[in-house]
Amino acid sequence: MFFMSDNTGPAHPAIMRALTEANSGFAAPYGADDWTAAAVANLRDVLEAPKASVNLVATGTAANSIALAALCPPWATTFCSSVAHIHEDECNAPEFYSGGAKLTLVGDGEKLTPESLRAAIEAEEIRGVHGPQRGPVSITQATEKGTLYSPAEIRAICDVAHGYGLKVHMDGARFANAVVSLGVTPAELTWKAGVDALSFGGTKNGLMGVEAIVMFDPDPDWEVQLRRKRGAHLFSKQRFLGAQMAEYVRDGLWLETARAANALCATLAEGLRAKGAVLDYEPEANIIFARLPRSTHARLQAAGAQYYLWDSALDGGSDDDMLLARFVCDWSLPRTSVEEFLSLL
Amino acid sequence: MFFMSDNTGPAHPAIMRALTEANSGFAAPYGADDWTAAAVANLRDVLEAPKASVNLVATGTAANSIALAALCPPWATTFCSSVAHIHEDECNAPEFYSGGAKLTLVGDGEKLTPESLRAAIEAEEIRGVHGPQRGPVSITQATEKGTLYSPAEIRAICDVAHGYGLKVHMDGARFANAVVSLGVTPAELTWKAGVDALSFGGTKNGLMGVEAIVMFDPDPDWEVQLRRKRGAHLFSKQRFLGAQMAEYVRDGLWLETARAANALCATLAEGLRAKGAVLDYEPEANIIFARLPRSTHARLQAAGAQYYLWDSALDGGSDDDMLLARFVCDWSLPRTSVEEFLSLL
Amino acid sequence: MFFMSDNTGPAHPAIMRALTEANSGFAAPYGADDWTAAAVANLRDVLEAPKASVNLVATGTAANSIALAALCPPWATTFCSSVAHIHEDECNAPEFYSGGAKLTLVGDGEKLTPESLRAAIEAEEIRGVHGPQRGPVSITQATEKGTLYSPAEIRAICDVAHGYGLKVHMDGARFANAVVSLGVTPAELTWKAGVDALSFGGTKNGLMGVEAIVMFDPDPDWEVQLRRKRGAHLFSKQRFLGAQMAEYVRDGLWLETARAANALCATLAEGLRAKGAVLDYEPEANIIFARLPRSTHARLQAAGAQYYLWDSALDGGSDDDMLLARFVCDWSLPRTSVEEFLSLL
Amino acid sequence: MFFMSDNTGPAHPAIMRALTEANSGFAAPYGADDWTAAAVANLRDVLEAPKASVNLVATGTAANSIALAALCPPWATTFCSSVAHIHEDECNAPEFYSGGAKLTLVGDGEKLTPESLRAAIEAEEIRGVHGPQRGPVSITQATEKGTLYSPAEIRAICDVAHGYGLKVHMDGARFANAVVSLGVTPAELTWKAGVDALSFGGTKNGLMGVEAIVMFDPDPDWEVQLRRKRGAHLFSKQRFLGAQMAEYVRDGLWLETARAANALCATLAEGLRAKGAVLDYEPEANIIFARLPRSTHARLQAAGAQYYLWDSALDGGSDDDMLLARFVCDWSLPRTSVEEFLSLL
Repeated sequence: MFFMSDNTGPAHPAIMRALTEANSGFAAPYGADDWTAAAVANLRDVLEAPKASVNLVATGTAANSIALAALCPPWATTFCSSVAHIHEDECNAPEFYSGGAKLTLVGDGEKLTPESLRAAIEAEEIRGVHGPQRGPVSITQATEKGTLYSPAEIRAICDVAHGYGLKVHMDGARFANAVVSLGVTPAELTWKAGVDALSFGGTKNGLMGVEAIVMFDPDPDWEVQLRRKRGAHLFSKQRFLGAQMAEYVRDGLWLETARAANALCATLAEGLRAKGAVLDYEPEANIIFARLPRSTHARLQAAGAQYYLWDSALDGGSDDDMLLARFVCDWSLPRTSVEEFLSLL
Repeated sequence: MFFMSDNTGPAHPAIMRALTEANSGFAAPYGADDWTAAAVANLRDVLEAPKASVNLVATGTAANSIALAALCPPWATTFCSSVAHIHEDECNAPEFYSGGAKLTLVGDGEKLTPESLRAAIEAEEIRGVHGPQRGPVSITQATEKGTLYSPAEIRAICDVAHGYGLKVHMDGARFANAVVSLGVTPAELTWKAGVDALSFGGTKNGLMGVEAIVMFDPDPDWEVQLRRKRGAHLFSKQRFLGAQMAEYVRDGLWLETARAANALCATLAEGLRAKGAVLDYEPEANIIFARLPRSTHARLQAAGAQYYLWDSALDGGSDDDMLLARFVCDWSLPRTSVEEFLSLL
Repeated sequence: MFFMSDNTGPAHPAIMRALTEANSGFAAPYGADDWTAAAVANLRDVLEAPKASVNLVATGTAANSIALAALCPPWATTFCSSVAHIHEDECNAPEFYSGGAKLTLVGDGEKLTPESLRAAIEAEEIRGVHGPQRGPVSITQATEKGTLYSPAEIRAICDVAHGYGLKVHMDGARFANAVVSLGVTPAELTWKAGVDALSFGGTKNGLMGVEAIVMFDPDPDWEVQLRRKRGAHLFSKQRFLGAQMAEYVRDGLWLETARAANALCATLAEGLRAKGAVLDYEPEANIIFARLPRSTHARLQAAGAQYYLWDSALDGGSDDDMLLARFVCDWSLPRTSVEEFLSLL
Repeated sequence: MFFMSDNTGPAHPAIMRALTEANSGFAAPYGADDWTAAAVANLRDVLEAPKASVNLVATGTAANSIALAALCPPWATTFCSSVAHIHEDECNAPEFYSGGAKLTLVGDGEKLTPESLRAAIEAEEIRGVHGPQRGPVSITQATEKGTLYSPAEIRAICDVAHGYGLKVHMDGARFANAVVSLGVTPAELTWKAGVDALSFGGTKNGLMGVEAIVMFDPDPDWEVQLRRKRGAHLFSKQRFLGAQMAEYVRDGLWLETARAANALCATLAEGLRAKGAVLDYEPEANIIFARLPRSTHARLQAAGAQYYLWDSALDGGSDDDMLLARFVCDWSLPRTSVEEFLSLL
């Protein structure tokens, strides 16, 4: 009954096999190996983007920070949600990598809308050289709240951004969950809808720690490589990143694990609602924000269920207080865990 | 016959086994897992430093840059060799992580001496607020030239540095090769000789990509953790770093692989000399700088030997020109490779 | 009828005289001159802070950025108002100088309160190493809205900040206006109320371009000096900054000019209200935010009145729309300007 | 007898008059004033560069750091002399402003030559993404040693740099001294010889503290403005910089003061040689490096002569030791000071 996060599960067995196979003899260092080449080729195939710049790193924060730094000069600001990972969970890494650019928080704490984005953009750069300059827009797909941007929503946001000459970055730490949930192609969710740069996640969906920085316009490829190296994120033995990513997207494994996670989440959401839980958002990926009485939380956690109480604490208050909790389903979570949890509930 | 570098070999089979064993079920993220705890404990044991701050990262450049940033304010300068990896091969990562500190190049292109260090330190900070301020000293063990600092040499350097109130960092990307070659304890090569911070390498000696930032005075531990996170080097699934490092230092594997590499190098050096090669330095670890006639290089490389010509090119010039080449022996290099190479020679 | 800003007026004649007197013969460079010594001594007297660290710079942005950088590590965040100059008008200079620290916006767009500050502090650093760490608090006195923090309000804010171990910085670009309006001593508005660092302004109140970075605990003095030099803000001919600041605070000139500005502003505010203008804030210093009908603005500006329409434009809309405008009274503004403006109105 | 530096003298009386004249009424802030416009226009005239980007700052370090940051990405290195002000005397400001770029030291401690520059450039960027990338070249005119680059020497250096696609920056803190000494036009010393960016100095030659950042290709003008603002170097009351610079270059004042300084220096050099001093360089501007016996230095300094002993100390050693000293002639130095010094000698 482990619902803490999807950053805590194992790597998929097929990934371990791929690593073991790659672990033989010498291989050219720093990404000049065959596995990295396969990863890049496979990812371009999956994205229908044969010329995209693709560079591997080991953490999502690295992917986000390097991608954004290539799009945002230090005197500008990146527009993002107030709950964006880049704002809340990266210890100022985007500010570090950009050399001191700002983040401007947009919207109501979940998704950006064309309206909230336009308002935020309009509010910046009315002060000439004095204020921060307008920089890129960053959206998260799936969002930190477990919801999704439809292709039409992405297109609308990209249209606003591009109308101001601004680029759009997508933090795709849970991109796979979005793809399988929406039933559209990766291309439809990204460049076909106007997205310029993608942090393509793997770590939360079956890899040990591999993400790809994808720039659909490959012009900044060399700059991305330099920023990666200067950030100390270029692996000498990069075959071990390449082998994971190549296998992950070669034949649909990445969609299979995401499907598993989403299905577990759907079952969990249905069960929670059946037992009276109130959900803050309609779950569309593998994350649920649900409110349950304090006493119920106490009982569940005492029985071994592991998840975060969100902005609240178990102790104190009345038994009937509805406390918000976050439940995340990792692809590897046994179905029996969900069943056990629901029967407890 | 692959002598390009020791950053191109596979992980040791025992490391793959450790990874596979670790790859089961959920584990607390961001280093709160059992494998990381074991890695830290084992490394403290090996270093006889039960209170040392130990933090894992995936690249040597990250280890060096983060360690130095914790020791060097942005208005200071780090004293290092002109051939130091931190100067030549990290694309300004130390400057990036420190926020713009300098490197001051010391010595003749191999090791620092107390004299060259003292002269360099004396030459800085004679200008009050105007010049860069004196910062830490960084030495490389084994050096980029395949040579070693004895404990006495380290002590002498540390004495000079400490006399000015400066800390000493050791880039130990090939620390294992030094330990087995010198036949002293890791403690004798580090804190017992005055070293304050160590980049403890694993990647060049049998790991996929794991290094440890060791601060013998643990005071800056939290700052190191923050710098690591902000640099995007904190892994969510850190158990996969921890499992490697724990196994690596648990029971002498790290010394075994280093011994293998050094032994191959000794055989290679002996053979090269027997065939008339001139060696620039007395090889003490797993790197050789040897001069051979251009025609010999041409013949060897045509036969499949892979190594770097150093500061020179195969084409042009006379057949008799003595061209410098670098040979590095990875722990995994088959002895038959060395034999084949020497028989070719 | 010039009400654009107080950054557009001349230097006070006494300042020009002081400059002319200082402009004779040689003087030790980089602040080792007599005028700088006098400025430091006079400012310490005025602040009743005989040991304070005092360093001169030429711009308010430099004073704020350097002071905050000395208080805020790059992985932290500074708590400030959403209308703070450091957020809106410094083109990311605080982020640049701190090496990428954040600003966290607090409150409703005017002053911080103990409650809004506490809520903002509580919301940060609940994520361990992942989120930005809590950094200093920065308040502006007088605020960008022309209002003031009383000593009791400052004390309450400092108590909250200090309760979390955080320092308090005051952006005192218009500190003089606050002192004369509140009728308290500079010490009562700063260190006696808990303020740790002060940007003591001069440029908006009769100087050409001189501000002082004051640290009431002088410990970081050398760091401030290094940050100033590294930021290229140390003047070789610093006597010309020193002479201005020494004269400014020697004998009350700074209070005299501020009194003049505040008095003009009070007359203007009274007149505006008498004519039906709606004021957003009770004017307490030398800035007014007033709403007048669009048609009135059009008439005033056509007649030569110069001021900013705030977040609105003259064109379009109905004549009766009440448009917000900002009026700033420089110390040098002729009283006849105000009278002419009010008679026009 | 003050020969310490040319950063210690007064502003020229004509500059004080210009300041006093400018100090009247309101003026648009942040460089939108008439004096700044005049400064830009006059400087473009003087440089025969009607489209050049010209931005004023108050310190030479700011001019150098901002100009170089616009030419040097953070993963690159600037090639400069080992005695360059940007290396020795700016407390890592160029590293700070560039975001962590390096400086690569070229040559023998005085001027760069095409050969030493080519060798240094060739030695960088042979390591692909690993080493620092090649960045701009910075030369100092007049040099820190009081010597000059002829137009032909500048052209030769620019040809080497441009051959690698690198830009050339000139630190012209003492540009005026070079112009009058060489008897060529400012254009011939800069863009006509290939120079791309110029720090045009005023502070060491009669101004209080004004320098201009000149980019002969104006493309980066907006970036320079943003970097200036973000560096906190944009003055609100910029008329006081503009008025100085406008007057300085309007009618030859800048050449007049430089001529005075150079003439004093020539007299001093002749006198020193006549008395047996050994000069390290042939003085071409307003700086002399001369060796005199220790006992002579002791006598001169006891009599009130003020100058730096360079890399040496008065105490200890033999009376006959020849100690190196630096003598700098400010434009404002009374001729009687030189005469008194020489008669003492």
